[in-house]
Amino acid sequence: MNDTDTLSAAERDAVYRCIFARRDIRGQFLPDPVDEAVLARVLRAAHHAPSVGFMQPWDFLVIRDEGVRRRVHAAFTDASAEAAEMFEDERRRQYQRLKLEGILDAPLNICVTCDRSRMGPVVLGRTHQPDMDLFSAVCAVQNLWLAARAENLGVGWVSIIDPARLRAVLGIPPAIEIVAYLCVGTVSHFPERPELETAGWQSRLDLSQRVWFDGWNKRTGDESLTAHIDTSR
Amino acid sequence: MNDTDTLSAAERDAVYRCIFARRDIRGQFLPDPVDEAVLARVLRAAHHAPSVGFMQPWDFLVIRDEGVRRRVHAAFTDASAEAAEMFEDERRRQYQRLKLEGILDAPLNICVTCDRSRMGPVVLGRTHQPDMDLFSAVCAVQNLWLAARAENLGVGWVSIIDPARLRAVLGIPPAIEIVAYLCVGTVSHFPERPELETAGWQSRLDLSQRVWFDGWNKRTGDESLTAHIDTSR
Repeated sequence: MNDTDTLSAAERDAVYRCIFARRDIRGQFLPDPVDEAVLARVLRAAHHAPSVGFMQPWDFLVIRDEGVRRRVHAAFTDASAEAAEMFEDERRRQYQRLKLEGILDAPLNICVTCDRSRMGPVVLGRTHQPDMDLFSAVCAVQNLWLAARAENLGVGWVSIIDPARLRAVLGIPPAIEIVAYLCVGTVSHFPERPELETAGWQSRLDLSQRVWFDGWNKRTGDESLTAHIDTSR
Repeated sequence: MNDTDTLSAAERDAVYRCIFARRDIRGQFLPDPVDEAVLARVLRAAHHAPSVGFMQPWDFLVIRDEGVRRRVHAAFTDASAEAAEMFEDERRRQYQRLKLEGILDAPLNICVTCDRSRMGPVVLGRTHQPDMDLFSAVCAVQNLWLAARAENLGVGWVSIIDPARLRAVLGIPPAIEIVAYLCVGTVSHFPERPELETAGWQSRLDLSQRVWFDGWNKRTGDESLTAHIDTSR
């Protein structure tokens, strides 16, 4: 491999720092506008995500209008009230105390969609796994999220919204699938750990228990990798 | 924001370099084994992906056994022959000339799955968008892919496989969803552009045509961001 292909140890460490310091931001947004050159770079990173058959099925709706964001926020509020009813007792009270979105706090929101018919009826790589186009759009979301973190911008993914209502607010046609609704902006700080972990909602799983070898539920003989996993942070 | 939260310009540039230099690798794998400490770091990065309700629904099946990989490869060969029949004339001949997987060339494969019932029937954030768990597992795939690129390892996502057959080969229970089948290894080089672009299969779309403002198909008044997008590389 030649030098132009090789990332250095310092570059590797920067990528890991970005991955481990990325957070789902809800309560730490500042109202300052996002620089347009920065936003353009973040969108460019999203556009360079992998996609099935190089389909690039995504569109990015950049939402700054406060009226539009208010309507999206109302859709969140209604959905979240419904969601709270699905939890019982103490878990419900805990849910109601959590801050779960920054739709109006962040200066901009980005909706990422998937045009499932973009390249016609037959797409290379999607013939046997039809959801590969949606998964490609999710890869674009994750690229966007990491690029934003590299720019010291926070991102929060708001999924507690009825997609039909979001579709109506944003005028998204029936043929286009909504993949993600993101809040984006500068932040007061990045929490050290995921907020659902800090709040005691859910703890981080043990990675070595989630790795199998050569088949489901198989582990014999690969203790060496498991040992590396246990010491890899 | 304090200094411990702030990524430097050099770190930002490293993240972008990784994002833009990442490729879907099919024909460039070398047979050398992947160092276990490196593999552990890559899996750790995947495990630190965002997940709905901190659900962490993923498992990682590390597949090195050649017999298992041969059976997966046979499933690919059959699916790809079916896929070729879906294209017509010149497009079919072009499809048949493409190298689309490195299942046996790479020293290891990784299957990423999603346990849809991991946190019980009600998951925070999945109440109104039930596929958020699958999307979380895809975020783990993209983290894995970028971490591998940062380690100068290639990754190729093989989606031309009947999931039922892959499930049978790997013994994956019905309740677990298969999300991605990845080939991972060192490479001779990283192609400068996506191979489907170089082969003339599909060109890269113009990003500025894929960005809208405050609603679908709306663009008026935001020429400034569009100009930044056009000059952002």
